[in-house]
Amino acid sequence: MHSQILFDHGRAARIGLPEAVFCQGKSFAAICELLERFGPKSDHSVLFTRLTEDVFAKVPKALTEGYDYDALSRTAFVAPLAPKKTERVAIVSAGTADAFVAHETARTLAYLGIACQLFEDCGVAGLWRLTEKLEAINACGCVVVVAGLDAALASVLGGLTSKPIFAVPTSVGYGMACEGQTALASMLVSCAPGVAVLNIDNGYGAACAAARVVLQLAAKTQ
Amino acid sequence: MHSQILFDHGRAARIGLPEAVFCQGKSFAAICELLERFGPKSDHSVLFTRLTEDVFAKVPKALTEGYDYDALSRTAFVAPLAPKKTERVAIVSAGTADAFVAHETARTLAYLGIACQLFEDCGVAGLWRLTEKLEAINACGCVVVVAGLDAALASVLGGLTSKPIFAVPTSVGYGMACEGQTALASMLVSCAPGVAVLNIDNGYGAACAAARVVLQLAAKTQ
Amino acid sequence: MHSQILFDHGRAARIGLPEAVFCQGKSFAAICELLERFGPKSDHSVLFTRLTEDVFAKVPKALTEGYDYDALSRTAFVAPLAPKKTERVAIVSAGTADAFVAHETARTLAYLGIACQLFEDCGVAGLWRLTEKLEAINACGCVVVVAGLDAALASVLGGLTSKPIFAVPTSVGYGMACEGQTALASMLVSCAPGVAVLNIDNGYGAACAAARVVLQLAAKTQ
Amino acid sequence: MHSQILFDHGRAARIGLPEAVFCQGKSFAAICELLERFGPKSDHSVLFTRLTEDVFAKVPKALTEGYDYDALSRTAFVAPLAPKKTERVAIVSAGTADAFVAHETARTLAYLGIACQLFEDCGVAGLWRLTEKLEAINACGCVVVVAGLDAALASVLGGLTSKPIFAVPTSVGYGMACEGQTALASMLVSCAPGVAVLNIDNGYGAACAAARVVLQLAAKTQ
Amino acid sequence: MHSQILFDHGRAARIGLPEAVFCQGKSFAAICELLERFGPKSDHSVLFTRLTEDVFAKVPKALTEGYDYDALSRTAFVAPLAPKKTERVAIVSAGTADAFVAHETARTLAYLGIACQLFEDCGVAGLWRLTEKLEAINACGCVVVVAGLDAALASVLGGLTSKPIFAVPTSVGYGMACEGQTALASMLVSCAPGVAVLNIDNGYGAACAAARVVLQLAAKTQ
Amino acid sequence: MHSQILFDHGRAARIGLPEAVFCQGKSFAAICELLERFGPKSDHSVLFTRLTEDVFAKVPKALTEGYDYDALSRTAFVAPLAPKKTERVAIVSAGTADAFVAHETARTLAYLGIACQLFEDCGVAGLWRLTEKLEAINACGCVVVVAGLDAALASVLGGLTSKPIFAVPTSVGYGMACEGQTALASMLVSCAPGVAVLNIDNGYGAACAAARVVLQLAAKTQ
Amino acid sequence: MHSQILFDHGRAARIGLPEAVFCQGKSFAAICELLERFGPKSDHSVLFTRLTEDVFAKVPKALTEGYDYDALSRTAFVAPLAPKKTERVAIVSAGTADAFVAHETARTLAYLGIACQLFEDCGVAGLWRLTEKLEAINACGCVVVVAGLDAALASVLGGLTSKPIFAVPTSVGYGMACEGQTALASMLVSCAPGVAVLNIDNGYGAACAAARVVLQLAAKTQ
Amino acid sequence: MHSQILFDHGRAARIGLPEAVFCQGKSFAAICELLERFGPKSDHSVLFTRLTEDVFAKVPKALTEGYDYDALSRTAFVAPLAPKKTERVAIVSAGTADAFVAHETARTLAYLGIACQLFEDCGVAGLWRLTEKLEAINACGCVVVVAGLDAALASVLGGLTSKPIFAVPTSVGYGMACEGQTALASMLVSCAPGVAVLNIDNGYGAACAAARVVLQLAAKTQ
Repeated sequence: MHSQILFDHGRAARIGLPEAVFCQGKSFAAICELLERFGPKSDHSVLFTRLTEDVFAKVPKALTEGYDYDALSRTAFVAPLAPKKTERVAIVSAGTADAFVAHETARTLAYLGIACQLFEDCGVAGLWRLTEKLEAINACGCVVVVAGLDAALASVLGGLTSKPIFAVPTSVGYGMACEGQTALASMLVSCAPGVAVLNIDNGYGAACAAARVVLQLAAKTQ
Repeated sequence: MHSQILFDHGRAARIGLPEAVFCQGKSFAAICELLERFGPKSDHSVLFTRLTEDVFAKVPKALTEGYDYDALSRTAFVAPLAPKKTERVAIVSAGTADAFVAHETARTLAYLGIACQLFEDCGVAGLWRLTEKLEAINACGCVVVVAGLDAALASVLGGLTSKPIFAVPTSVGYGMACEGQTALASMLVSCAPGVAVLNIDNGYGAACAAARVVLQLAAKTQ
Repeated sequence: MHSQILFDHGRAARIGLPEAVFCQGKSFAAICELLERFGPKSDHSVLFTRLTEDVFAKVPKALTEGYDYDALSRTAFVAPLAPKKTERVAIVSAGTADAFVAHETARTLAYLGIACQLFEDCGVAGLWRLTEKLEAINACGCVVVVAGLDAALASVLGGLTSKPIFAVPTSVGYGMACEGQTALASMLVSCAPGVAVLNIDNGYGAACAAARVVLQLAAKTQ
Repeated sequence: MHSQILFDHGRAARIGLPEAVFCQGKSFAAICELLERFGPKSDHSVLFTRLTEDVFAKVPKALTEGYDYDALSRTAFVAPLAPKKTERVAIVSAGTADAFVAHETARTLAYLGIACQLFEDCGVAGLWRLTEKLEAINACGCVVVVAGLDAALASVLGGLTSKPIFAVPTSVGYGMACEGQTALASMLVSCAPGVAVLNIDNGYGAACAAARVVLQLAAKTQ
Repeated sequence: MHSQILFDHGRAARIGLPEAVFCQGKSFAAICELLERFGPKSDHSVLFTRLTEDVFAKVPKALTEGYDYDALSRTAFVAPLAPKKTERVAIVSAGTADAFVAHETARTLAYLGIACQLFEDCGVAGLWRLTEKLEAINACGCVVVVAGLDAALASVLGGLTSKPIFAVPTSVGYGMACEGQTALASMLVSCAPGVAVLNIDNGYGAACAAARVVLQLAAKTQ
Repeated sequence: MHSQILFDHGRAARIGLPEAVFCQGKSFAAICELLERFGPKSDHSVLFTRLTEDVFAKVPKALTEGYDYDALSRTAFVAPLAPKKTERVAIVSAGTADAFVAHETARTLAYLGIACQLFEDCGVAGLWRLTEKLEAINACGCVVVVAGLDAALASVLGGLTSKPIFAVPTSVGYGMACEGQTALASMLVSCAPGVAVLNIDNGYGAACAAARVVLQLAAKTQ
Repeated sequence: MHSQILFDHGRAARIGLPEAVFCQGKSFAAICELLERFGPKSDHSVLFTRLTEDVFAKVPKALTEGYDYDALSRTAFVAPLAPKKTERVAIVSAGTADAFVAHETARTLAYLGIACQLFEDCGVAGLWRLTEKLEAINACGCVVVVAGLDAALASVLGGLTSKPIFAVPTSVGYGMACEGQTALASMLVSCAPGVAVLNIDNGYGAACAAARVVLQLAAKTQ
Repeated sequence: MHSQILFDHGRAARIGLPEAVFCQGKSFAAICELLERFGPKSDHSVLFTRLTEDVFAKVPKALTEGYDYDALSRTAFVAPLAPKKTERVAIVSAGTADAFVAHETARTLAYLGIACQLFEDCGVAGLWRLTEKLEAINACGCVVVVAGLDAALASVLGGLTSKPIFAVPTSVGYGMACEGQTALASMLVSCAPGVAVLNIDNGYGAACAAARVVLQLAAKTQ
């Protein structure tokens, strides 16, 4: 692959969200080239997602210097974008194993300059864990719910909040969890109205969907 | 098909539950033969399931006389078996569309001589509908939960009761409800421990599973 | 089914959207009971969805009098709710066969008192049909995209608008269209960031998701 | 992940079964934190499941001291709960390869203080292996059947016992065994009435389901 | 379709089995043309399969005269082929609903001039029904087993006979029976060795497979 | 796992085929125990299948001494059973990548004392490779066809031979080969009549099915 | 639906193929509107596909006058486009039941003004039917192969012709034919190189693909 | 495996494309044998595909000498075939992660002696990347489009070119990308007419399909 990878620098102007680098499936050489291109000396701060600890450790130190890397969310960037005056995004997750997705959402929002608040371990097998936090969740401008297995949290929370709500199924579980397909289908047929769904484990996409909402809200209130 | 259908009359002695006639898939001639064989003059009272209103209406009146038929549950029998001194079975369903399954469970228990109590419209999009009835549900000896779509009711209820609990997914819904397969998978990966699952729409099977439990309870307490 | 169906009248207060009646899968008797209960004399105006022309025609005239029924979207209600001062919702559909879903979204919004604008026949096999209307679409506060088959419209539009965008796959097509599952999966893995997805043919859900957004926007700007 | 994982200590009071730690999918750091929190000095004895030999071997010895670990079932706990005066649970498995699931059930019951009896290698390709043990199986209060492949054992045993019966499909096999989905589906459509099913390889869940039954029996007989 | 349908008259010489007419999916005109072509005056007696009662009733009487038609098996032919001196084929089926497939096998063998013996209602939920007939089954030269649902009969019988054994899954059942796919997969992963499987409901194919065996046996013994 | 694994030594008497040891999924300890139990000093010569080179290399030499091991077919046994006076079995495979399955069939037959002949690389993309060998194939008493991908070889060969024919799909290929499920489905719906099918990669099962046929033939001709 | 359906009249100029009307899924009103718009008085001759006999019969005669309708292929148009000087397209189908698809291809080509030649009943269970016609097939400029079930014809023909070859799977068959998905997957993994595949039953698409080739050929040779 | 692998040397004469060696699934020994057989001293230059860097590095240097190996496309050959006087093939890909497939197509064409031009990073989330290159693409004789995820590029490009167009789905992505099955299905139901599809990741097959077209074009124009 001799030619330089074509980057869509106009995307932020067009849709309010800059192009990110999705590392999974890219060759190691391509990842290195892009880490170098968008390093501390670049005019563009770019978000790298699905950049595993293993891969990041193998990149020459000269290229990773200046990057803020987070292993749990598998994300890296040099600096966040300018902070936006928006409402906070609530990120509500069901269990400890869902953390890698919830934190991908949190880090993407941090990179975009949007505030968020994490509510973890709210699975419905112990309803009190959710109801205790309901008021704080409803004080945010938009809700992201992250859950695997039966994803019942999405339905229960969807029936308790009037905010725009985005649901991310996770690939947590075994057997009939089917790598997250059961959680995905459950969220899509949720009995709570207006719950919109992202791809399995797509914490990045949920952050983008929430950003579209709170940025729009911010634009209106200025 | 010239020969008489072989009936397993020893089943009640062996497993405590008599053989029933599952009508779906049987030829009309076979259904008529069996309705006649187990009519009011027979020594055996047999339960007919999946006997739709359309089919039942076409059977000669001479053969259906004496049968107690219920269209919603699609069941028929001449007389219930002797009443058993067991605890009641709670049947909890999520929505109005799940009624055909919940009532198949109720009618099967009625035929077996076991008491039950129906709690309908308890879907979790309005949690108050479930929590209001929780005490009455927990007063029963065994719980059957009937739900389609995301089947979140099974997880929520499984986290609120200590009783043996059997979950029946229903084929209610469209699109990714996948004829009940999503509800089934959701129940199987429920985050509440010890929820055991029956086939889609299998209200009859849930009644049998619950009967195994309450009959065993009754045997112990005598 | 002897008891009256339990209705969740508190839902509008809780989540800003009143409970609707999903007719598919309900018995004819249950539909009639509900049409009667929420007729012109009722305090509540309720939306009926998935009410097919065949079924509606069979309901006694006394019960349907006063209802505004639309056959294409399969919806009925007595009167819309009070109009809301929100931005318009853009509904963009790919082909003529997607109309039944696009119109379910439009009618649900009409019932909720929210303005919308329909852009039909914008499939990407003729890109000019979409680009011509892009400015008008971007003048709305939220976008719903309705498409079947390869659902490429969702990806293309997602790369051209900064607004919150909800995608509804339709069951249009044959063979590998798989009753809408291909369109659904395509939308979920869209290369455009932040496209959130509803269940197959769920025009009602998309209207609710869009309503959550524009109502929130309206609340902020007051 | 800075905050401590929220544990549902009220679960035992609510449903009779304490929360367990499902290790698969949790980060190594989270597993270590929990092993330390619930070690010999803790007031709570907690069950760890899906804790593989590889992972357990990497945990610092200081944290694992005092734990009773079993590699085949992949379980660990410091001490069993107080023994319960219940009937024994029969665990019947089809083949040697099903042992990891059968033993997960046995260890979970041991932790809960409930007696059980294992009947291994009872696959129906040699019916004598099952019939020889039938009397001993029927002397128990509840039956768990563990089988992969065609799972024919569940149907055959379901036709030979009147006890509550829970079936666990295993992921044993290749090709059309489909990681246990064939066994699962076979059990769900079993021709024996009242066989209730757990998720693939869910030995823990079967133990919980059986515990709900025998604890209920014990409560009644006291 | 102007041209005459090409018939493979050389097939009997090549593989010992003449070509048959599979009616499902053929246009009514094509079926009529073939019934006429292979009627009583033809040199060839041809087997028609999947010829439903509805379709057969609509064919002009002039064309069906001379045909031996059987509604349960949906087969027709003018005359059987010359009888073969082979061993009998045993056809063992699980339930009454499997009869349409078992009889398709029986009628195909009758047409081919091969003797067979039917053993119906042998499902394993009542093992005595099978064991009673085992000696008679083992006296045949080849076994065809027909079963739906969990298809446990194939595994149990495969462990009790040394004869070549062909298994036909049926589309009987609902929910996770998945139109016979569960029975098919169960048979393919049967724990009994050497059970070979045909397509769902393919009673005709099982007859052909059995015919290949017994004709080969007959050829050797002459 | 304290108790000794139960072995079905009566199987050979019952169905003509002794029980084999399927190593995949068994613990290393269980494999070692069985290799020791059935080593050169045992009365029973047992076939081990799915015994990979990696695993076999790790077994202590003392236990593997005396075993005839073949890496390609992943089989081991101490000595073949007494040779049987049967016709040869033809094993016809499509491509080089199918060899591991074709050789599992060949080795199983060798262990059973039954002669066979291998015809490899006969895929239909070059029809001459098959037609050249047709006479030799038809001189055998039974045919096993091994193919992956589209499995067209099964249909073509099924139309060219009158012998009993067993088809084994292989997991060869990528993408829509779906780990052999496409080959399996193709074989099941083959347009050639009487082709019976085994599980994906089940070379052992095909050998057993063929053995049932040729042993039956041998019994008749004595 | 008040607005007129948007038609892409520029498509022929852009890609050489005019837009067609796919009737399946369109409302009856929409079909009538389009039949009227593109009737004998229109400047545009448009192809209607998936226009079933039932629907066509219900359209008012005034609207269908002047249309050339073919029931088997379910197509209608007023007049073919100007004839093109291209090579012929060969259409090769496996069985009589595939005719509705093969004829859809033939009629679409006829409408486009491109010559074609039909070769029906060439299934590989009787190889002579294909080899007899091979020379005539290879005299065409492009090959379309239409087959259901195992679709072995595509692989065999792909190994015998050097021409561009397009394969159309059909939904013919039952059970594991899976509505054409098995034929589709078989064609995609064909062992013959360069076989390109269309959607199930998509005779129209195959005609378009073939037209792209022969029109390109014609353009080059002028 | 004692015998030499049968190679189809007549294939080039028969279909214009020589047999290639697909390395995936072949044993290491078989790959070495074939690399040796078709090395620099052979009369035949053969293409090796799916030859990963790992495997190639392990082959003894003596056998790989003289081979032109490319790691990204995983291909090797000694020398290209004689150059053909054909039009160029355009290869258009959506993203950087699709490069391994696009380059497999390019290298196969290079081996066949056919010119091609690569257009990478043309995904539709930034439409300008595609439209900028449209003229150059349309100057080629045939188009191969390579895309994963939603594969919207195939539909958009199919609506913008009149050339024969072959689409290759890639296994890029996660969750509902389903290893390329979503891209495959999207391409098959593309709303652009005449887009023909190859197996997932089958860059080699697309090259062969394109070669059939441009070689045919070349033959006509000579």
